[in-house]
Amino acid sequence: MAKKTSAAATGTIQNPLAIGIDIGGTGTKFGIVDRDGNVLFSGEMSTRGHADIDAYIDELARTLGELIDKAGGIGRMKGIGMGAPNGNYYTGTIEYAPNLPWKGIIPLAKMIEDKFKLPVSLTNDANAAAIGEMMYGAAKGMRDFIMITLGTGVGSGIVANGNLIYGHDGFAGEVGHTIIIPDGRVHEGTGKKGSLESYASATGVKLTALEMLEKRKEDSLLRKVPKDKMDSKAVYDAAIQGDKLALEVFEFTGKILGLALANCVMFSSPEAIVLFGGLTKAGELILKPTREHMEANLIQVFQNKVKLLISHLKESDAAILGASALVWEMK
Amino acid sequence: MAKKTSAAATGTIQNPLAIGIDIGGTGTKFGIVDRDGNVLFSGEMSTRGHADIDAYIDELARTLGELIDKAGGIGRMKGIGMGAPNGNYYTGTIEYAPNLPWKGIIPLAKMIEDKFKLPVSLTNDANAAAIGEMMYGAAKGMRDFIMITLGTGVGSGIVANGNLIYGHDGFAGEVGHTIIIPDGRVHEGTGKKGSLESYASATGVKLTALEMLEKRKEDSLLRKVPKDKMDSKAVYDAAIQGDKLALEVFEFTGKILGLALANCVMFSSPEAIVLFGGLTKAGELILKPTREHMEANLIQVFQNKVKLLISHLKESDAAILGASALVWEMK
Repeated sequence: MAKKTSAAATGTIQNPLAIGIDIGGTGTKFGIVDRDGNVLFSGEMSTRGHADIDAYIDELARTLGELIDKAGGIGRMKGIGMGAPNGNYYTGTIEYAPNLPWKGIIPLAKMIEDKFKLPVSLTNDANAAAIGEMMYGAAKGMRDFIMITLGTGVGSGIVANGNLIYGHDGFAGEVGHTIIIPDGRVHEGTGKKGSLESYASATGVKLTALEMLEKRKEDSLLRKVPKDKMDSKAVYDAAIQGDKLALEVFEFTGKILGLALANCVMFSSPEAIVLFGGLTKAGELILKPTREHMEANLIQVFQNKVKLLISHLKESDAAILGASALVWEMK
Repeated sequence: MAKKTSAAATGTIQNPLAIGIDIGGTGTKFGIVDRDGNVLFSGEMSTRGHADIDAYIDELARTLGELIDKAGGIGRMKGIGMGAPNGNYYTGTIEYAPNLPWKGIIPLAKMIEDKFKLPVSLTNDANAAAIGEMMYGAAKGMRDFIMITLGTGVGSGIVANGNLIYGHDGFAGEVGHTIIIPDGRVHEGTGKKGSLESYASATGVKLTALEMLEKRKEDSLLRKVPKDKMDSKAVYDAAIQGDKLALEVFEFTGKILGLALANCVMFSSPEAIVLFGGLTKAGELILKPTREHMEANLIQVFQNKVKLLISHLKESDAAILGASALVWEMK
């Protein structure tokens, strides 16, 4: 053990491993990953229910610490990569994250570094996912692509010339908040009208279904779903049974997502767009209208060129893989 | 002279100069520029009225050749930088440019290289302008900014991590064609509905004025302008005299431009957006609503951070400077 620690200190760890931590609004996933992208050990804990951020880090140190011991001890670890909503790569802080329990500006990278005595790299969760796709997934070998995560919200990571775009302040890649329908649906968290996230997220699909049910008179399997149980899964279940209204919900969602993706393409002209997250489970129900409306909104020079891909990384591993990939990029 | 040519051949030109050529839909501007961005000699000719592309290049060789001789001969020239609509940096071709007389795919860089026996670098006009701003203009020293040219059309050049984003195929930066108003005004050239260019260009301002005059009953100085003489200059002249309808035309244009810029900011988080071109002459008439609507559509983390700048390069020089700047980037 002493030998390993000393090897770590001199930067010559044999077969080094990377720690990946993905902090979500509900849960925190973590794991230990080798250079080839194998998740050797993994675990998770709640992001919520701690007295404060220090208590959260204490629990993380305890549960993750057990995995580290199993994997050969801290001396084998090259560093820690973290993905978190509103995580800033440049400053290592989480800033005003609406979905996390800690308010204001949290110097998370520094706090984790102090706790584990390992170098820490932090970025937002969608950026981490993009790096994961570039190293191990659908975007392997690509120098220009856009990652879009379609979960409770919509995240994005933009890679150009082989590099992630962080922007001047580290906050680039908020495609989910771009305005697609001016004066459209109000976003609960931001108060802005007509953003992509207010339509093309799990939350957006739920709202579209509820709106359509209210506006229309026609029968639908969705009328049997209690309002407070309505979610994208219920819409999917109805759609695969051929329910017309449920199918229209996906058609409408794909129309807006397709338009937004067309705008992305005309901005940075990526080779591919990689989609990830819960909504992609709807498969062609969402992909078909998305692809059609993307193409319909592109000017000629971009048409029939951009690959629309679904991430094939195992969902439970992808977040950890993405975060851990930051470690291999450390100088 | 012989000595200079030989120096050029061995790559050790003393005080080398760069040639910049900007090809517009109507005119072609060219000039010879020193390393500090001084335009030493310049000239222009029509882009149109030639039998074919070879006749165009012959005239260019003749008129530009005279300037080269004045500037010390071909041996002092490091290379030629060119900006042209739909110019592709990777392939050196102009592809399907709707506003140029030559159709299809033109291997322009190769043709100019063969004619002048100098290395040639080609990109689209807005990308060239962005490089010019980065080397000599409002974006000097910036690593993340977006250039927007507001002329007959709307062009853009996006710089991230200090590099221009060309995209996987060399066509990145078509913000003018992003859709801002779904199902909005049809773009004459592309057939797409609601693109930024169909509103926030000189052409767009004219169309907005004509539409408002038709929809409204109120009096306006613009009612005295014959329909076929309506242009952004006429709208400006009326607006500075306090004409309510003309002012509204700029307010409306700024509203759409501001929304589009907000989307750009949430994509790549630039330090600044540099505006250039005819429409910027309207000053605060267009800037004020643009700034307000940009801020109103940004989520908190981006608010009151992004500089909205007007290019201060002399308009007649800027296109040449931008194109010539490509030469100093040659490897």
